[in-house]
Amino acid sequence: MPSVPQESGQRGWLIPIGGAEGKRKDSVILKRFVALCGGEAAKILVIPTASQLDETGPAYVELFEEMDARALCMPVETREQCFEEQIVAKLDVATGIFMTGGNQLRLSTILGGTPVARAIRRRHAEGVPVAGTSAGAAIMSEHMIAGGRSGPSPRESGVELAPGLGLTNRAIVDQHFSQRGRMGRLLSALSFNPFICGLGIDENTAAFINADGVFEVVGRGTVTVIDPSGLRHSSMSRVRKAQAVTLTDLRLHVLAEGARYDLEKREALVTGDG
Amino acid sequence: MPSVPQESGQRGWLIPIGGAEGKRKDSVILKRFVALCGGEAAKILVIPTASQLDETGPAYVELFEEMDARALCMPVETREQCFEEQIVAKLDVATGIFMTGGNQLRLSTILGGTPVARAIRRRHAEGVPVAGTSAGAAIMSEHMIAGGRSGPSPRESGVELAPGLGLTNRAIVDQHFSQRGRMGRLLSALSFNPFICGLGIDENTAAFINADGVFEVVGRGTVTVIDPSGLRHSSMSRVRKAQAVTLTDLRLHVLAEGARYDLEKREALVTGDG
Repeated sequence: MPSVPQESGQRGWLIPIGGAEGKRKDSVILKRFVALCGGEAAKILVIPTASQLDETGPAYVELFEEMDARALCMPVETREQCFEEQIVAKLDVATGIFMTGGNQLRLSTILGGTPVARAIRRRHAEGVPVAGTSAGAAIMSEHMIAGGRSGPSPRESGVELAPGLGLTNRAIVDQHFSQRGRMGRLLSALSFNPFICGLGIDENTAAFINADGVFEVVGRGTVTVIDPSGLRHSSMSRVRKAQAVTLTDLRLHVLAEGARYDLEKREALVTGDG
Repeated sequence: MPSVPQESGQRGWLIPIGGAEGKRKDSVILKRFVALCGGEAAKILVIPTASQLDETGPAYVELFEEMDARALCMPVETREQCFEEQIVAKLDVATGIFMTGGNQLRLSTILGGTPVARAIRRRHAEGVPVAGTSAGAAIMSEHMIAGGRSGPSPRESGVELAPGLGLTNRAIVDQHFSQRGRMGRLLSALSFNPFICGLGIDENTAAFINADGVFEVVGRGTVTVIDPSGLRHSSMSRVRKAQAVTLTDLRLHVLAEGARYDLEKREALVTGDG
């Protein structure tokens, strides 16, 4: 369960990005994130833990600074570091949190259950926007897609799940969606328990989810929404190893820039001009 | 429009196969096709026109003969040949018609509108099963997917359509579906006019469509059904070149072996054991 916001507060924006987002000064996704964090008053904390490349975090810091925000990279490589008070203190003053790409299992195994993870959840509940790209997007949901097969058919053993940060329990996110053919693993994830919505986010595309659970698509690709709430039949419990699975009566929305979706009401909100 | 069956007759089975089907003597898809053609009494006409390889047609003849059917390859390479009476005469005695893979534009440009195309439609309306794999599956529908982009997002210019043989006007078929990431081009095709159902057929998988428009899935992959009849919003008419398209409120079914779907009623028919 996501942390419960204070009475006075409102949950922060949650911004899963499908990876490979534009990294120029005028790039629409990151620029909009910076604006939500306070623009020139923003203090953005970059968490590069998913990545094993030393340059990943500093590159985002440089980019956010080019956009006139302040930014700081917080390299966390071990669980031990996640218990250090000065690291948690940095989260307490941040007006925005950004998690880079890499391997989401590094995020879950290093941050999971530590004071850092708790602080991210608390700050988000207090209103701080949290963005993440690729692995940094996957980690956001309560149940996270850690790996799986490519291709559009759901299969037994088609997906590996792991606990995520739990910043939302309304959706499960998959990224590089079009580019890596991940419909099947997202469907496999939903077949286990269809109470959540599946969001397949393309590269250079983001879902800007507001405090009410309504998101807007920003970027060049699409967000594929699979709403399994009407699922009438799933053969997942009966199929043999790696076999294809039957799933009927799912609702599918493919949303390009400007289109919105209400994760609470499970409803696409598109105007005639959307 | 498909040819109208004689009062006495019933339309033949239509069997689109997603390509790369098993080609051993005991392969489930082709064996079932042979049985529908009459088993040992079958006279199957193989149309290898989609392929530019000389061995494609004879290989299927050999395979059908190993299954104890009679089979004959009808190499048609030019439109002129499609006007020869002895070629049409071969269709008149066939109890089954099989179209090989290759390039569906060869099928449509060589056979389209000729006496051979008309004879295939007539024989199918009279009750003769028609199977086709890959390009041979694509050509079956009234509106055929001739090409397009891979990836799951529908896009402006995301698909190239061409007239097919029109053996069904209930569905549009795409093949090698999982294997080549074709959700986007199938969605693009449906966005132009959502009155038909989209069938995305995986490799080594087939939809056996009966005279009533109910099909059963046979094979190792899945048939993805996209039913656009509830489509509430499409931005296809407004987007710019190659841009992503918003499509909302589609119904999605992913059907594995044994699952059935009614193309008339737009309803998945899956029992508790399916």
